[in-house]
This record gives sequence, C-alpha cells and structure tokens, in this order.
Amino acid sequence: MARTFRISRRRALTLAGVTAAAGAGAGVAAGRATPEATASPADPDVLSYPFHGEHQAGITTPAQDRLHFAAFDVDDISREELIGLLKDWTAAAARMSQGGSAGDFAPDAGPYEAPPEDTGEAMGLGPTGLTITFGFGPTLFTTADGTDRFGIADRRPQVLTELPTFAGDMLEERISGGDLCIQACADDPQVAVHAVRNLSRIAFGRASLRYSQLGFGRTSSTSTAQVTPRNLFGFKDGTANVKAEDPAAVDEHVWVAEGDDQAWMAGGSYLVSRKVRMNVEPWDRTRLSEQERSIGRTKGTGAPLSGGDEFTAPDFAMPGSGGRPIIAEQSHVRLAHPDSNGGARMLRRGYNYVDGNDDLGRLDAGLFFICFQRDPERSFIPVQTSLAGSDILNEYIRHVGSGIFAVPGGATEGSYVGARLFEA
Amino acid sequence: MARTFRISRRRALTLAGVTAAAGAGAGVAAGRATPEATASPADPDVLSYPFHGEHQAGITTPAQDRLHFAAFDVDDISREELIGLLKDWTAAAARMSQGGSAGDFAPDAGPYEAPPEDTGEAMGLGPTGLTITFGFGPTLFTTADGTDRFGIADRRPQVLTELPTFAGDMLEERISGGDLCIQACADDPQVAVHAVRNLSRIAFGRASLRYSQLGFGRTSSTSTAQVTPRNLFGFKDGTANVKAEDPAAVDEHVWVAEGDDQAWMAGGSYLVSRKVRMNVEPWDRTRLSEQERSIGRTKGTGAPLSGGDEFTAPDFAMPGSGGRPIIAEQSHVRLAHPDSNGGARMLRRGYNYVDGNDDLGRLDAGLFFICFQRDPERSFIPVQTSLAGSDILNEYIRHVGSGIFAVPGGATEGSYVGARLFEA
Repeated sequence: MARTFRISRRRALTLAGVTAAAGAGAGVAAGRATPEATASPADPDVLSYPFHGEHQAGITTPAQDRLHFAAFDVDDISREELIGLLKDWTAAAARMSQGGSAGDFAPDAGPYEAPPEDTGEAMGLGPTGLTITFGFGPTLFTTADGTDRFGIADRRPQVLTELPTFAGDMLEERISGGDLCIQACADDPQVAVHAVRNLSRIAFGRASLRYSQLGFGRTSSTSTAQVTPRNLFGFKDGTANVKAEDPAAVDEHVWVAEGDDQAWMAGGSYLVSRKVRMNVEPWDRTRLSEQERSIGRTKGTGAPLSGGDEFTAPDFAMPGSGGRPIIAEQSHVRLAHPDSNGGARMLRRGYNYVDGNDDLGRLDAGLFFICFQRDPERSFIPVQTSLAGSDILNEYIRHVGSGIFAVPGGATEGSYVGARLFEA
Repeated sequence: MARTFRISRRRALTLAGVTAAAGAGAGVAAGRATPEATASPADPDVLSYPFHGEHQAGITTPAQDRLHFAAFDVDDISREELIGLLKDWTAAAARMSQGGSAGDFAPDAGPYEAPPEDTGEAMGLGPTGLTITFGFGPTLFTTADGTDRFGIADRRPQVLTELPTFAGDMLEERISGGDLCIQACADDPQVAVHAVRNLSRIAFGRASLRYSQLGFGRTSSTSTAQVTPRNLFGFKDGTANVKAEDPAAVDEHVWVAEGDDQAWMAGGSYLVSRKVRMNVEPWDRTRLSEQERSIGRTKGTGAPLSGGDEFTAPDFAMPGSGGRPIIAEQSHVRLAHPDSNGGARMLRRGYNYVDGNDDLGRLDAGLFFICFQRDPERSFIPVQTSLAGSDILNEYIRHVGSGIFAVPGGATEGSYVGARLFEA
C-alpha cells in the first residue's frame, strides 16, 4: 500500500515557500517552491512545518490555534498489519502536513469508479501549520489480560503504564485510554478535522476511533514569540511553560535521551492528556478576589499576587494579610510551580473546548490538557498528585478523561513513525 | 440594570479603526479611533461590524469562520423582566461586537469583592468580526398549552410556527426549538464562545441555555468576495447563495418588508436552523461517480455536471447516458435549485460541526444549517419538502435538530433588539 507522493494540481496552487523550521519555529526557510507559488510568507494559510526529522512535529512547534485529538483502539490484526497501518498513516500525514491530499486519488485526480483517497473538504485550503503527532498507549504493548498482541511487550517503557488514580478523579472509560493517539493541530479547524478524518478512514478495518476531541484557543504558548493565551476561567495559563527557545530545558524536560529507558524512544516524549471539565457558571459568580486567590495571579495582567508583571517570578514567601503568604499555599500557581515539585517541568500544549451544554443548561466546557515530558513519573504525576490533593481550583474542575502515550521520535524520509519499535 | 459604555484600558489598546460597513461588508470605514489605536486595517483581529442599524448584523455580513449558536428557554418571568433581559443582552452585544467587555466591571477594572461582569477569556483578543444576532421562537409568543406568557400572542407572525414534519426527520427534542436564539459568529472561536457564555451569564435567573452548537469552516459564502467553502462531504456548498452584493435579491428574498405581516418584523428575517448529521464513513467509501451524481456537481471544481465552471448555470435538460438528464433528477443541486422551487431563494449561512464521535467510532459530524429568508413558507419549507422526499443524499444524512426564529430588525442606539415587538 505504498503511496507515491503526488500533489494534485489544485493543491499545488496553494503550496508556497513558507516552511518554518521544525520544532523551534525560529525561522522561515524556503519550502518546496512551485512555479505557481505566489502566496507571500505572511499568509498564514501556507505556513507549513517539516514532517520528517529527529523529533515529531507538534511538540515544540509553536502551538497552533486549533486541535483535533483522537484515540484509537487497534482491531484484531497482526503485527505486520499494524506496521502497515503506521506506514500508511506516516505517508498520509507527511503529505497532508505539506498541504497535500491524504492519498493519490484526490477527488480531482483519480478513477471515477472508486472512492477518492481524500475526502476533499480541505481542497483549496493551505496546510495552515498542520502538524500530526502519533503516540502509543500502554495497551498497545500489553492488553489488560496480559496478552502480548504485537510481540512488543518487552519493549514497553517502564513509565508507559496507566496513570495512578488521583484524588477526585471522575474519569469516564469511554473518553480515556486508547492503543494509539493522533494529535492534529492547525490554525484552521477544517484542516485538523480533515487530517483526523482521513487517518481514521485509512485505519478502517485495522483500528477504530475510540474518542476524539476538538479544541481551540491554545491555552499554552510554546514559544517566547507567542502571547500567553487565556483559559476558560479567563486567566492566562502556561506563563512558566517550557519554551522552544530554551533548548537546554527542552532537552532536560521534554525529549527522552538515549539510555533513559527503551532505546527506540530516544528523541521521543511522553504525552499525557486530561480532559478537565470546568464548572464555569459557579466560577463566573465568584468574587474576583476569590478567583485571584485560587489562581495566585491577577486576572488582568497575569502577574503573580506578589507583584510585578506576568513574567515576574512569584515570591511565595511574601507575607500577606494575617501573616499568611500573599500567594496562598493552596493556590494553583504555587502547587504547580517547579519549586514545589522538585524542579519538575513539562511542556504544556492544551486547548479549550466547548462540547455544547449539559441537560441543566450548563456549558459543557473546559480544558483538554496535553503535556509532553521526558518522564511522567518526575513531572506530570507528582504535580497532579499535589494539585489533586489541595488545589483550591478543585471546587470548580473535574477530571473526566485521561490518557498516556509514548510518542516516538520523528520518522526519517522513507521510514515510518515508530519504526524503531518494531526493528530487530 | 442599564450599563454605561466604558472600554477597559486593556481593550482600548486592541481597538482600532477598522469597521466594515454593516451587512454589505463592502467598505472599510473609520471606527472609533483611540489614541492608542495602532493596528493596521489588514489585521483581522480588529475587524468589527457596527452593531446598530436597520438590520441586525450577522445575516448579510460576510460569513465569518466560526459559529457559536445557542437556544434559550425563558424562565417563569414577567414581561418587564423579559424586556429587561433583551435590554441587557443588547447592551452587552453592542459592546462585545466592538471588542469591549460584556459589562462595566471587567476583571482589570472593577470591585475586587464582586464577580467580574466579564468572564475574561477574550481579554487581549480583538473583535475578530464578531456579530451577535438575536431571534424569537414561536414558543415565546404562545406556549404549547396556549398561554400568552408575555402579552405578545397577537403579535406572532403567521409564518412563525413550528416547521412541518419532513419525511425522514429524526429530530431530538433537546436540540430543537427554543424561546430565544443567539447566533454568534466571529473569526476566532474563543471570541464567539465568550459572547455566548457572557450572554448566558447575564440571562441567569431569566433564561437558561437549552442547547448550543459550535461550528467552523462556514459552508456558505454570503459575499462575492468569498471563496465558496466545502462541506464535510468535500463538496463546495452554497454556490448559488443570495449574496450581499445583490441588494435587489436580498430585499426580495431575505428582509421582511413593511406590510408583509406584523409591522414589528419590518427589516427583520426568519432564521431556520437544522442540525444535519452526516454519515461521513459510508460516504467516504462511495465511488466518486456516485458522490457526484448525488450532488449534481463535480467534486473538484464544483462545476455542474452539465459543464462549465463553478458559477455556470446548471443545464437540467442536457441529456446524459441512457437518455436521462446528465444532472440526475434526484440530485441535490436540482432539487434545491430555485428553478425547481418556483424561484425560492434563501441566504444560507451554515457551518460544519464535529461533536467528537459516537460509541461505534463514527465521527459525530455534519452541517449546522442556518438560513435566513423573508418567508419560510415560500423558501425553506418547499425546498426541504422537495429534498426530504427524494434527494439521493438522504441515504447519507439525518436531520436531528430544528429551529425557527423571528429575527427582528436592528436596534437603534439607545434602544434594544425587539423593542418594536413590545411597543404599544
């Protein structure tokens, strides 16, 4: 099922010479110039990131504005069929991330008496910064009853195991877990949806969609060039995030190094996802003082309550009224801060979501939290343990979905994502 | 509960002199210049449309990229309280559509010991073309048991009545109907969500959210300057839409005229919404020839099967193979065409949606169809009757939600949306 790389005429018109450097997003390099390429580098529609490289795109890539996240269950197939799926996914993802169609037979360039190999709704749209990131869940390695489905049980990284149950967890099974995950991010939701839909189509008979989630308004900046966005509590979120411009921090906290654990994970990372429902209506009826006390920052500028501006380090020792610290001990900023967690940091890349409303007329809204880290046992797990235990915010939030995935390093051209996992 | 108009310092920085002419979107006029205004007119973040005028914005306004639609049930309140709600909504909508906060007490400019009058997640974002359009459902005038709740039963327009049941309808009560509706459209989903959330907050105790729907990738262009977008079947949709640049067609098909029916509806329009679930997986496994036969257009360019380009008029008489017309008699384009419906036209303004997936791993996706018209009995109802009866597409779609709303004319400054309905 190898697919040759062919760009449809129509899509070639929209491809232009804008390709940001992978990961760092620091520069704009020349892309595949075509004779028809006319768009200016300032056109966000033609922004594209390289698919191949040491790391998968979509981690340190400057966070795009829209998310379509999907988790899949693998059907009862063989190891070879699983490898075939990963090869097909890799080929399609590489094409789509450059603005191409998912398969050879786009609706305007294929046999008339067969289904098109691309569903068509992204025709005429540019890549709009699309990245597609693949991950492997613990159940891909060993099923609940201990079966080694694909002969990779002995290659499961030690840390790739179900997350512990945290205080207050109200997880729903049907929106948790998954054998495989795809994180598709783009600046146009139709492009991200098109990617997940076509990868789901390609998986037909081999893997099926378990759950999927749309998100918008990235809640964390992953580049110093980005403004810190706001979550649905109206606060800036992710000010102290690991940023792409700090390669030492990225290497220390995000990428798995050779020798960390399984060799095939070098250059990869671990993705933890948490669907966090926010009870926005009670929050909206809470006094500003209480909101700021819960977060530990001002709502307007995002400065810590100890003063300064958004990027001033919080002073947890500064006394407030009654001799207690001005930044409450159970505030979110304090509990989540690296200083409270042995220096633990992670790269957060979450998105806001609104899934309509519930039967009581309350918005079904919140945060689809995603983070990447070198070792969840040293970053997400201790931080979440601390938050789950005493964060004032817990009154207003509820964790309803959860996932953990090993995200392997990037594929080289001609290979596929996860190849090292299956090599002898 | 009158609110004075005050722009927070922070928001003033993002307001700039870009205000497109209401409705037509034909020009860019000078907005409220502030000393701090620095953004260039090319910045889509600061695009704004006037709120006040003869017609409500959000109808002939060039379709923005994102939708948050919400329907409300009015609580057991008095006529005066309902009028109070409409006044409060009007004031907040006017402010937000210009990039302002929902109320006076934004998080950075209000009393510390009270809840902010704006939830904050749009702070730092521009208006991004936000329009907020209000409508009144039939049940606002007369409840199912015939009660005249607000003394307006005799002002219900004749055509504002529950839609007939169409063949194949599988409507869900909980996502249909509503006493009031709000259509919020913007180019940034966080801005549209912020608008609905704050209007919902303002309604607390007076009206409650019945259902809400997010959409993206507008499926109809309402201006000749816009490219025709694609629906989730991958086809261009709405090529023959009523466009703002054709004022004669807009007057004939969209705006209610003086003398049409109830005087208070002059300058208004009727909104019909239909949530149309699309079975994308079977569609994606259908041959291209069958897809194009169902639609009556080519998938690539959108040209009718009788030839030409997207904007060529379809030739329904042109013979195809076997002596039958080349554009099938039961194709979507033919059944929906004005020539097949006594010249009926409407202004379509729908959006694609993806609400995750169902338990069988199928994308819960489709079209949130919205159209505006002068008289639904002469446009939407006959067209949908014809489509519901024989459209080949019915194999792949299912209507699951429905609504009809009277959208009054625009408010003048100092007044409120719907004021004429309540005047003596």
